[in-house]
Amino acid sequence: MMKTLSSSKAFGGIQSVHSHASEACGCDMTFALYLPPRAQERKVPLLWYLSGLTCTHQNVMDKGEYRRTAAELGVAILCPDTSPRGPDVPDEKDNWQFGQGAGFYLDATQPPFDRNYRMQRYVLSELTALASGIDALDMGRQGIFGHSMGGHGALTFALKNPERFRSVSAFAPIVHPTTADWSRPALTKYLGTDERAWRAYDAVSLIEDGRRVPDLLVDQGAADPFLEKGLQPQLLAEACRKADIPLTLNLREGYDHSYFFISTFMADHIAWHAARLR
Amino acid sequence: MMKTLSSSKAFGGIQSVHSHASEACGCDMTFALYLPPRAQERKVPLLWYLSGLTCTHQNVMDKGEYRRTAAELGVAILCPDTSPRGPDVPDEKDNWQFGQGAGFYLDATQPPFDRNYRMQRYVLSELTALASGIDALDMGRQGIFGHSMGGHGALTFALKNPERFRSVSAFAPIVHPTTADWSRPALTKYLGTDERAWRAYDAVSLIEDGRRVPDLLVDQGAADPFLEKGLQPQLLAEACRKADIPLTLNLREGYDHSYFFISTFMADHIAWHAARLR
Repeated sequence: MMKTLSSSKAFGGIQSVHSHASEACGCDMTFALYLPPRAQERKVPLLWYLSGLTCTHQNVMDKGEYRRTAAELGVAILCPDTSPRGPDVPDEKDNWQFGQGAGFYLDATQPPFDRNYRMQRYVLSELTALASGIDALDMGRQGIFGHSMGGHGALTFALKNPERFRSVSAFAPIVHPTTADWSRPALTKYLGTDERAWRAYDAVSLIEDGRRVPDLLVDQGAADPFLEKGLQPQLLAEACRKADIPLTLNLREGYDHSYFFISTFMADHIAWHAARLR
Repeated sequence: MMKTLSSSKAFGGIQSVHSHASEACGCDMTFALYLPPRAQERKVPLLWYLSGLTCTHQNVMDKGEYRRTAAELGVAILCPDTSPRGPDVPDEKDNWQFGQGAGFYLDATQPPFDRNYRMQRYVLSELTALASGIDALDMGRQGIFGHSMGGHGALTFALKNPERFRSVSAFAPIVHPTTADWSRPALTKYLGTDERAWRAYDAVSLIEDGRRVPDLLVDQGAADPFLEKGLQPQLLAEACRKADIPLTLNLREGYDHSYFFISTFMADHIAWHAARLR
């Protein structure tokens, strides 16, 4: 049922890649899992990493530099893909903001996308059930983080499931996709034109609607080309201020939107989660 | 003359990629350079990283995880490509052990390869001259390391230029290519059938012929699929023993030949070089 595509020792633990048939996505899905050395002796906390637009499970596995700190602090890192994939999955080939690689961690309601684009259900139910079957993972201690569209996924999943995710953080997250030019077309196609349905997939709207997390860490590059028009972390800061959610927002001078930025602050984020998942 | 293809802040320093027309290789060549934060204040040592078969400058930049330690210890990392490239460069498309991606850090003498496959001259002269023009680099303090075919490059370059390279190390190096099945065909095509000409490109032979380095660090995965037939680090150990070269050879239980292995021990290697480049 679950097929292991690769497995390599790294920093004393095991980095592996697996695929499995997904009911939620109607296709085979691939994910990456890092188990720290400590997982050979006892159960370890599970930290989900959700990736951004155009990425698969592989980008952060290759370039995120999470293994050193995950090994040191004894945290497992699980990296799902960002969308359903395959020749039978509806797509817009030349559009990087919609379709394959751009699932936005939602459950689509509009045909033809509602057959495959159910990434919320995939991550929160189906892949979670699979993870529950892995002995080394302590499902009672879960955190979640991500980058850009994956930061959006992490924030919204944590806000909607505070009993499940004890810790949440993000790199350059999309915090208010219902108002941003680069996400509105995708939300329309996945969810329809009634914007009330979009609020369940928007961190700022969820906070406005009363959802809470205990606290929140966000790193944002000040030289990120998407900062002004797309990301707008000040909207999250304002929502958190009004809702009394303690937000640590680090604006990082000179950093862009790439994995060079992510990897630089990866250790800080894993330490943030590890402290809350003890 | 030198064109900057990309530049990103990472771990407080700058990771950049550049291309330039190469006389030695008869084509445009690309390389990656990481300057640590300390380079903004004073000159820093230069550590060359040579990559293995099939790689470009990019693989180790993406997956090597060298920036954290290079930033901490104040070392610049320069990563050349592994061969000349382009439609006019002779190649064997389906052969990963010869041609593009497999330059073996030698100067070919056999047509048609002698026009382009001059990676020794490229690295040691042409790219060195370019690096000399970069203010932040202290060309009086250079070290060299690499992986697999790049480990071969690092060992042979250091053995032939002990006045230049103060430190040398390797991950899973090809130590005796003149006797290994996977390198003999390439040496024949690049250098001809007279095997005496091959000895200048073989670490074990160079040591047998009297070349020396002050000391040497090698890490080797015990689960490396190329260990038994291709890599054979015991041949290097034996040559070093006979030549009284202090060799630290770490056989790493469970590790394979991948960047998961390299990145795990990257910090150790950079620290080894930094201690010798002070």
